[in-house]
Amino acid sequence: MKTKSADILVKNGIVLTLDENTTEISNGAVALSQDTITAIGPAIDFSDWSASRIIDANGGIIMPGLINSHTHASMTCFRGLADDLQLMAWLNDHIFPAEAKLDDYKVYAGALLACAEMIMSGTTCFCDMYLFEDAVARAAKDAGVRAVVGEVLYDFDSPNYGAIEKGFEYTQRLIDTWKDDPLVTIAVEPHSTYLCKPELLKKAFSLTQSYGLPLVTHVAESKSEVEQIKARYGRTPVEHLADIEVLAPNVLACHCVELTPNDISLLQRFDVKVAHNAESNMKLASGVAPIPALLNAGICVGLGTDGCASNNDLDLFLEMDTVAKLHKAKTLDPTAMDARTVLKMATIQSARALGLDHIIGSLEVGKKADLIIIDTNKPHLTPMYNPVSHLVYAAMGSDVTTTVINGRVVMEDRELKSLDLKKVMDEVNKIADEIREE
Amino acid sequence: MKTKSADILVKNGIVLTLDENTTEISNGAVALSQDTITAIGPAIDFSDWSASRIIDANGGIIMPGLINSHTHASMTCFRGLADDLQLMAWLNDHIFPAEAKLDDYKVYAGALLACAEMIMSGTTCFCDMYLFEDAVARAAKDAGVRAVVGEVLYDFDSPNYGAIEKGFEYTQRLIDTWKDDPLVTIAVEPHSTYLCKPELLKKAFSLTQSYGLPLVTHVAESKSEVEQIKARYGRTPVEHLADIEVLAPNVLACHCVELTPNDISLLQRFDVKVAHNAESNMKLASGVAPIPALLNAGICVGLGTDGCASNNDLDLFLEMDTVAKLHKAKTLDPTAMDARTVLKMATIQSARALGLDHIIGSLEVGKKADLIIIDTNKPHLTPMYNPVSHLVYAAMGSDVTTTVINGRVVMEDRELKSLDLKKVMDEVNKIADEIREE
Repeated sequence: MKTKSADILVKNGIVLTLDENTTEISNGAVALSQDTITAIGPAIDFSDWSASRIIDANGGIIMPGLINSHTHASMTCFRGLADDLQLMAWLNDHIFPAEAKLDDYKVYAGALLACAEMIMSGTTCFCDMYLFEDAVARAAKDAGVRAVVGEVLYDFDSPNYGAIEKGFEYTQRLIDTWKDDPLVTIAVEPHSTYLCKPELLKKAFSLTQSYGLPLVTHVAESKSEVEQIKARYGRTPVEHLADIEVLAPNVLACHCVELTPNDISLLQRFDVKVAHNAESNMKLASGVAPIPALLNAGICVGLGTDGCASNNDLDLFLEMDTVAKLHKAKTLDPTAMDARTVLKMATIQSARALGLDHIIGSLEVGKKADLIIIDTNKPHLTPMYNPVSHLVYAAMGSDVTTTVINGRVVMEDRELKSLDLKKVMDEVNKIADEIREE
Repeated sequence: MKTKSADILVKNGIVLTLDENTTEISNGAVALSQDTITAIGPAIDFSDWSASRIIDANGGIIMPGLINSHTHASMTCFRGLADDLQLMAWLNDHIFPAEAKLDDYKVYAGALLACAEMIMSGTTCFCDMYLFEDAVARAAKDAGVRAVVGEVLYDFDSPNYGAIEKGFEYTQRLIDTWKDDPLVTIAVEPHSTYLCKPELLKKAFSLTQSYGLPLVTHVAESKSEVEQIKARYGRTPVEHLADIEVLAPNVLACHCVELTPNDISLLQRFDVKVAHNAESNMKLASGVAPIPALLNAGICVGLGTDGCASNNDLDLFLEMDTVAKLHKAKTLDPTAMDARTVLKMATIQSARALGLDHIIGSLEVGKKADLIIIDTNKPHLTPMYNPVSHLVYAAMGSDVTTTVINGRVVMEDRELKSLDLKKVMDEVNKIADEIREE
């Protein structure tokens, strides 16, 4: 007699919970009901369970979905448009002219393609900063991907909202529109200390305090940025943010490549979160963020891909591999950034960085049903002494077979279920044709 | 009336020849007869051709197979066995004990798995250094992969051949056995200046001169190696090789992480070739080889993955991505190591490094029929402004659909044709069980 039931039972896999004890169950199962994880345990515990739907992991790895803590999803439209250029030539001659043509529709189409790519490479949640962010929120909802979205705010006029006051109005509308959404949450996202006056940053921070939202901003991405802020304010970007009282536990500082020891102390003291975008920082020649030092200081660091124009993909498996290796080469210490640390950065630490670790980032009863299955029955994942090693050093996005977000199966056996993939790609190809013609 | 014919016609794709002019044909075809490329051109030139077999690239990219200029194929057996350790702990506690158990059969099984992984990630030729290399040669032949193989030679007794004189006898047998093989060529492979006395290196070099073979050796992989050689000989490894007259155009120096300006001058003067193994050098915390400086000096640099124990895969697409980004971060110059340069390193430059550029490394009439097809109809490769950018910055091994080596279709539509993949994986899983038990 069946005594326990679930909507979905994911079984026959190695369950990597990535919970506090990094519990690993060699032959386990996970039960999902509606949007929630209701049980996790060894296979034998589930012998008397019934389920509306059983998903067989075929001996692969069942784990929490990856979380991209910093991206600009719609920049898929500009993937590979221009590479290998000096930053100013890249921005002024290629990216800015292409972005000037953006509208709500293009941002929606680009974000939908990004969602398809993320689902198909095991990412179940992303934090976005861009223009026309309501379109990104709609795309995430339509694709069934969890998202933290925020309209980029800066001192100039925006192609979306115009003057900055309208930017705050747009953000307020995002907050009102999406306040009860099961997938989308809103952040307030002033671009950076170099594109935002202190008043803008303080007003943005004040808004986050009123609503309990994250504040997402770019911080110390490059040496030239730090020099610019020092020339303007006589202090580093982090010191400047501390000075104007915009450092707090709800602040997500993206990049943090160029930090002084005092900057690190400030980030630690105010419990600021960091999004590390190793591949983008490499490609744009910004350098290597001092992540081992941040982790030693107990600072929460999540992983991000940044936008496709500077990566050029959204695959967090490949990002993990790069992160684990890069810091070993930088510090000349092969024990730096071990695989487990990096895997946690891409899951539970990214969740913490976004203020969502109470609902996602690990497989735990009561958390949201966001999980992925990795097929390990492949030559490049054979043999397997240690699943964590493979996830970081050998797996790639295409090894993900199944993606579940908020209890909905959005990909199964590599087939995207929530979107018409051909149509999604066709739309962005049309946008690319327009960009090429100009 | 059909006027021209081929055994295989690969059509309906973007043909990236990677020849001297990097000729790109937006809708092209490649004709293969027996083991040779017999024609390349725009689709329209082939309208009157007949072919025994037509392979449709479906609008993807048709390009030369990638060439792995330095690996230890059979180390697939130890993939992920131990990571994130200090070099000596990693070697003494994990790798050396596992290697002590190797035999001809295990090396064959491990190499066969490596061949499967390489075929499935678009690598059509590899250069190997290990023990029991006759087994690697047999595996390459059985898998249908082109290979340059050489038994590792050093001052100690070897688990394969015993004393070093026997190592030269083993190498001589390899040369005799494989001398007319269409896929396998032999190299002479003394391990390094730190494991080989000058007499061994000179004898190995003399053997290469007798038979016109490459000499493959590890050079300046880490700072501690360089310090050790300086203490022993009063000069750097490269200076030491120059001093004993073992620098020449047929020498492939693997790694070259720690080089002085004088070392670079010597490599240039003697036209020595270099194999760059960025990911392995990162993972083992050896550092970053000064590749932009080597390229500026006109030195030929190919790409390698090194063995799976320090990577942990054999995917040259992922390696290209890392190489293109790593040197930008190191030099803080975003124009360093542009995509085209890196793609050539993984194809024609690796071919030159192995002395095989007259037969492989680019699609040219008269060269051997080694080519791959990449499916670009995927979200992470959409849109496509520039195929070369995508191959380096966004593609991964799993995007390869079809692999042809020496005119034989060894993978089609991701199905491995030359090997029983399940059996290949099962055998290495059994070996891993033995390693785990010990």
